[in-house]
Amino acid sequence: MADPAPPTALYAADCVKPDGRPLTLYGLAPVRVRGAIPSPSPDPVDARPALRWHPLRGEWVMYAAHRMGRTFLPPPEYNPLAPTTDPQHPTELPQGDYDIAVFDNRFPSLTLTAPEPPAGPAGTRAGVGACEVVVFSQSAQGRLCDLRDEQVTLLLSVWADRTARLAATGQIQSVLAFENRGVEVGVTLHHPHGQIYAYDHIPPVQARMLAQTGAYRAQHGRPWLADFVAEERQSGERLVRDDGLALSVVPPFARYSYETWVLPARPVGLLSDLSGAERASLARVLKDALLRLDGLFGVRMPYLLTVHQAPLDGPHPEFPLHIELYPYLRAPGRMKYLAGTEQGAGEFANDKLPEVAAAELRAVSPSAGEGL
Amino acid sequence: MADPAPPTALYAADCVKPDGRPLTLYGLAPVRVRGAIPSPSPDPVDARPALRWHPLRGEWVMYAAHRMGRTFLPPPEYNPLAPTTDPQHPTELPQGDYDIAVFDNRFPSLTLTAPEPPAGPAGTRAGVGACEVVVFSQSAQGRLCDLRDEQVTLLLSVWADRTARLAATGQIQSVLAFENRGVEVGVTLHHPHGQIYAYDHIPPVQARMLAQTGAYRAQHGRPWLADFVAEERQSGERLVRDDGLALSVVPPFARYSYETWVLPARPVGLLSDLSGAERASLARVLKDALLRLDGLFGVRMPYLLTVHQAPLDGPHPEFPLHIELYPYLRAPGRMKYLAGTEQGAGEFANDKLPEVAAAELRAVSPSAGEGL
Repeated sequence: MADPAPPTALYAADCVKPDGRPLTLYGLAPVRVRGAIPSPSPDPVDARPALRWHPLRGEWVMYAAHRMGRTFLPPPEYNPLAPTTDPQHPTELPQGDYDIAVFDNRFPSLTLTAPEPPAGPAGTRAGVGACEVVVFSQSAQGRLCDLRDEQVTLLLSVWADRTARLAATGQIQSVLAFENRGVEVGVTLHHPHGQIYAYDHIPPVQARMLAQTGAYRAQHGRPWLADFVAEERQSGERLVRDDGLALSVVPPFARYSYETWVLPARPVGLLSDLSGAERASLARVLKDALLRLDGLFGVRMPYLLTVHQAPLDGPHPEFPLHIELYPYLRAPGRMKYLAGTEQGAGEFANDKLPEVAAAELRAVSPSAGEGL
Repeated sequence: MADPAPPTALYAADCVKPDGRPLTLYGLAPVRVRGAIPSPSPDPVDARPALRWHPLRGEWVMYAAHRMGRTFLPPPEYNPLAPTTDPQHPTELPQGDYDIAVFDNRFPSLTLTAPEPPAGPAGTRAGVGACEVVVFSQSAQGRLCDLRDEQVTLLLSVWADRTARLAATGQIQSVLAFENRGVEVGVTLHHPHGQIYAYDHIPPVQARMLAQTGAYRAQHGRPWLADFVAEERQSGERLVRDDGLALSVVPPFARYSYETWVLPARPVGLLSDLSGAERASLARVLKDALLRLDGLFGVRMPYLLTVHQAPLDGPHPEFPLHIELYPYLRAPGRMKYLAGTEQGAGEFANDKLPEVAAAELRAVSPSAGEGL
């Protein structure tokens, strides 16, 4: 069933920045660099992140005291994610022919080279992991949903490639790719980009998903996602779009009013497990979902996009690869905030039934989200 | 050790609103009502909240579709939490002599009388629980930290009384009292108030705390909080204030830059387990912590305050009663947002070491927070 040939070629060029950080340029066509590989500062990154154990929540907390000085809403003339045009003011990226760029965050919460921290409270250790920046396009103005279909497919392939590279270090157990969009939710750089966090352990959300879907598989003998897709297709009430090999749905247990999940119809654990045709279908459905969210209220919807992949510490056929979109507007001009019950009890209150939200999203033409 | 006599008397008067909702008025002196008990609308509350099970996160999600029409930033002339002055425009509260008022939320996410929902997706059930509003003062302008010490002590007693009443229904397993403060975090009514959410099950955060502290007690033979308080007092690095029977500390595993915990020195599970003297000490330390947070940057710090008490389904001597304060500013004008790693992985990134934050908070005079 899976077609191993990718629908679009992926070209990659590995570079090193003057401050020692790695940079990979990805393209749909062969990558060419013009001029020097830049860095905003020539100083080597001196990150010493640490992890401390939260004994009541049973989770790690990341400390990166060096992050306080990170770039914050720079004036429009300086965009560190645009290709360098003035060598006197180097950015993170060079001139050249490429579509997507990935480099290590200059202010990481986790690094593969984190040293042992100085003596601290019990439960303190080195913040081993990785924090990468993924620049979606050379254009500062666009959105993820403005990319052409094959560029979105390329992004899925880049996320898959980064996951494979991080797995190959032997130090990483879980990789989270995400995009946080909108000044309403703290985005400091408006050039379209996302991030990757890679952990040397399985974080709480992924650990929970693994336990839940493992129990489901043990009980039912089938992966959870297979039954979920079958049920959502049969009811149809919460489907937003069905592209055959991939689909989008407002899950029956949505925590945000217009929460949308984008998922392959075939259960797999990793993006790299998808065939080229499946990846292209997933990209089309993702772009469609993002355009509908922007078209819903006629504004750029602030959102969080997270890519959930199986942990890397072994085969986890029970873990369902999927993308979750959390749109932060619950009505025009009305944000959803995480308040007492969400943060203090871990339990969400949602004002909108998923069936109603899905019907609204189906009624939005994706073209209504264009040009915003 | 515990002194059962409260330091201040608690007077309470139970009333019923025209729409059927209960209202309790609490006072340091005998309560007197002048005029009718009001309600903004005479229509009975027709709330039909439902719970749905999130199969991947293993938690309930609350659906309250009737909440969408709830009061949102009303003009200053109408404040539903102030005592009614014009019977043509009734508020939630009457004129009279009282300090604190508690009533059922008119737009609840959970109610004790929730009916079985119509047939829905698997894992749907009635949203049984309670959502109460706790008005801290008759004055619309003040803050929790502007209350006199004995009024803050009264508030702790009111939270204890609400917990006992909810436990007495036999339908509630966990009670969360909280205050969400600041328009930055979605507060729609500026009159100082908090809320109570009561669940018919143990929510994820409390379940996790119970499991973690139960394992600690089984391993060490002592309650976690006893060792925590001893260690924090011995090191002193993260103490903000020590009042003897209660203290405040930036925990070594703080998730927010200036996160502060306010806790009794003696491990107990419930506010009602505290002696009067302990409750008064806890109130002093809480007020002190809030004044320091406002004084830190010279602005009203947006924050979430949550009161963590033991679940009500049995004795849980391992569960540590404590109050968590999450200040949302990590620097002047810079909010902490919950983005990819926090929401997608459940793991927080913090730019500030707790030892540094505690030193800054110790250096703030509580009086710097007065009059803001």
